[in-house]
Amino acid sequence: MSAPTLAVIGGGQLARMMAQPAIALGLPLRLLAEAGGVSAAQVIPDHVVGDYRDLDTLLKVTDGCAAVTFDHEHVPTEHLHALERTGVAVRPGPDALVFAQDKGLMRERLGELGVPCPRNAIVGTVEDVEAFGFPCVLKTTRGGYDGKGVWVVRSAADAREPFEVAAHAGVRILAEELVDFRRELSAIVARSPSGQAAAYPVVETTQRDGICHEVVAPAPGLSDELSGAAQSIALRVAGELGVTGILAVELFEALDENGRPQVLVNELAMRPHNTGHWTQDGAVTSQFENHLRAVMDLPLGSPAPRQRWTVMVNILGGSDPEVGHLYDGFPHALARDPRLRVHLYGKELRPGRKVGHVNTYGDDLDDCLERARHAAAWFAGDLGNESE
Amino acid sequence: MSAPTLAVIGGGQLARMMAQPAIALGLPLRLLAEAGGVSAAQVIPDHVVGDYRDLDTLLKVTDGCAAVTFDHEHVPTEHLHALERTGVAVRPGPDALVFAQDKGLMRERLGELGVPCPRNAIVGTVEDVEAFGFPCVLKTTRGGYDGKGVWVVRSAADAREPFEVAAHAGVRILAEELVDFRRELSAIVARSPSGQAAAYPVVETTQRDGICHEVVAPAPGLSDELSGAAQSIALRVAGELGVTGILAVELFEALDENGRPQVLVNELAMRPHNTGHWTQDGAVTSQFENHLRAVMDLPLGSPAPRQRWTVMVNILGGSDPEVGHLYDGFPHALARDPRLRVHLYGKELRPGRKVGHVNTYGDDLDDCLERARHAAAWFAGDLGNESE
Repeated sequence: MSAPTLAVIGGGQLARMMAQPAIALGLPLRLLAEAGGVSAAQVIPDHVVGDYRDLDTLLKVTDGCAAVTFDHEHVPTEHLHALERTGVAVRPGPDALVFAQDKGLMRERLGELGVPCPRNAIVGTVEDVEAFGFPCVLKTTRGGYDGKGVWVVRSAADAREPFEVAAHAGVRILAEELVDFRRELSAIVARSPSGQAAAYPVVETTQRDGICHEVVAPAPGLSDELSGAAQSIALRVAGELGVTGILAVELFEALDENGRPQVLVNELAMRPHNTGHWTQDGAVTSQFENHLRAVMDLPLGSPAPRQRWTVMVNILGGSDPEVGHLYDGFPHALARDPRLRVHLYGKELRPGRKVGHVNTYGDDLDDCLERARHAAAWFAGDLGNESE
Repeated sequence: MSAPTLAVIGGGQLARMMAQPAIALGLPLRLLAEAGGVSAAQVIPDHVVGDYRDLDTLLKVTDGCAAVTFDHEHVPTEHLHALERTGVAVRPGPDALVFAQDKGLMRERLGELGVPCPRNAIVGTVEDVEAFGFPCVLKTTRGGYDGKGVWVVRSAADAREPFEVAAHAGVRILAEELVDFRRELSAIVARSPSGQAAAYPVVETTQRDGICHEVVAPAPGLSDELSGAAQSIALRVAGELGVTGILAVELFEALDENGRPQVLVNELAMRPHNTGHWTQDGAVTSQFENHLRAVMDLPLGSPAPRQRWTVMVNILGGSDPEVGHLYDGFPHALARDPRLRVHLYGKELRPGRKVGHVNTYGDDLDDCLERARHAAAWFAGDLGNESE
């Protein structure tokens, strides 16, 4: 059979980075982009500009495609069911994706499965939150990402804003225990419709203002027991929820009531994930390639690491309006480190915006960290004032 | 400054494989493709369909671009000079590229530089060939590639066809000694306009019917002396000829008159080369990325190998018309070898046509060879009749 076409909904950097392995695999992509010239539309010729909330647009983009996958989790569930009825394979399918879209349903389902989670409850009023106990974390059940739709609340007064936002958006509020975690981890697996699953090494992630900032693969000093527990959770959740493609499970490493280390599930994402960008240069098969293979039900590639350590640091727009374009960062960053791997998203620098990332790898973790941090800071302009 | 645009002339697989690192570097490409839907046009949105022999088309494509580079070496020299006069950086420039376009000029220049070459002479008649001596190799000075425009001649009768072809094409004939070589090698370097140069490990290449078939990196058992000699030749030629971008020097390993091993230059190519495809998975920086960096005068990436051995085997269309599309090869090839790296060019299978390649890497050369050969044969359909 001639190569089937895969539709991708959403024109962000995740779709952009799917384009690279799609070129290698000879797999044609058809993109639905939010606007002309967005990150993935710059690099995928066969694209349509339109609104992913409009069913007619979705039907048009997926017409003739073997499968459809996603750059984000925001396509309405009813549209996903409508697409399935046309015969296109929706991957991940709506019955799985809903658990990445709705944190309330996710907590309920993980609870049923006995997967360790922070204590949590759906709360309808400020009084419910008081009953749940302060301090705690309130989250809108739908629509949040990168720290948006998440509040740490320590008093009834703190809890008012979340309920206003939720009422406005027509979503519920989930209360979660504020976990006193030692660090954050991420376990990524790829799963195909036929059930084949590949688990990447568990990584340590550092957040800054609710946005993934730095990833070390594998997580330093993680015991085999905890690493195995994290991978088992990710594999089990992928299987039980029927996930196809990449599943990222963000976890807290914390102590249980007996003072023993444990992992607790924080969030789920059913798409290539920021905590897996290290795989582009650090694993035999990147998460983007394995996502494509999985959603096309092709055999998965090895998730094994290629080096002792790989470090990923995000490039975020800084607050200095004088900093120019990312391209200006190349002469110094590339000359300083001929082994540096740079991944830019075709976006202009704006404060707090993810515009790219760098990967470094090697045998010396401190060296990898120093190289990646320096380069990311340089691109973002955070070193400019010091060095000039 | 905002990222400059790089024009690429020619829509083949080399341009296609430049697209992947261009995505990572955030470097916009503008392609001139021979026809709609060709290999690179499938994956580079900003493309024009037109004839690279037409100056107006070239001017239109390069308008507003910072630099222009090439998928092939066939753009007429006078057009390259005309492009330079518009202010666009032509890389490699016409004064360098002419030595990859014209084998007669190449031999003359390498002779002046004292670079070791097979004995050679421009021949105007069959009598000249007789005087040069049989057996020998006759080559058209321009327009040949992948074994086309090359004849091994053993008699005056053999020499008639080459002269007919050359007269028809308006090119000269170069006679070269038929080297009794031990094996063929390739030395690839990237060189930037500012003179920075990075040399990849010297590889062993095996040709089949004049087409590169298999590459082993690094060349097994190559002495440090010969490896150094080959790299020195490539670096010297790149510098003396003012090459920008990738220079591939194809070499013969042979014995000199005293029975000592030596390397002799066979061919030059000034673009990413089939003998460098292993770098996509086997080197820190691929030849495609270093080509982009070099032509944009950005610092070059490390050419160091990532593994002990990397093997590349080309996928060539076979003679069996029953063999379907390359996509049919995935279920077996990927399941058999989860570490296999596949690179397809978006081309239909036709007898003898390069449609993709596979890379394998590891510590065991025999294992790498077996895996790559099996996969390439499977994709081409050469194993289909046996196994079914």
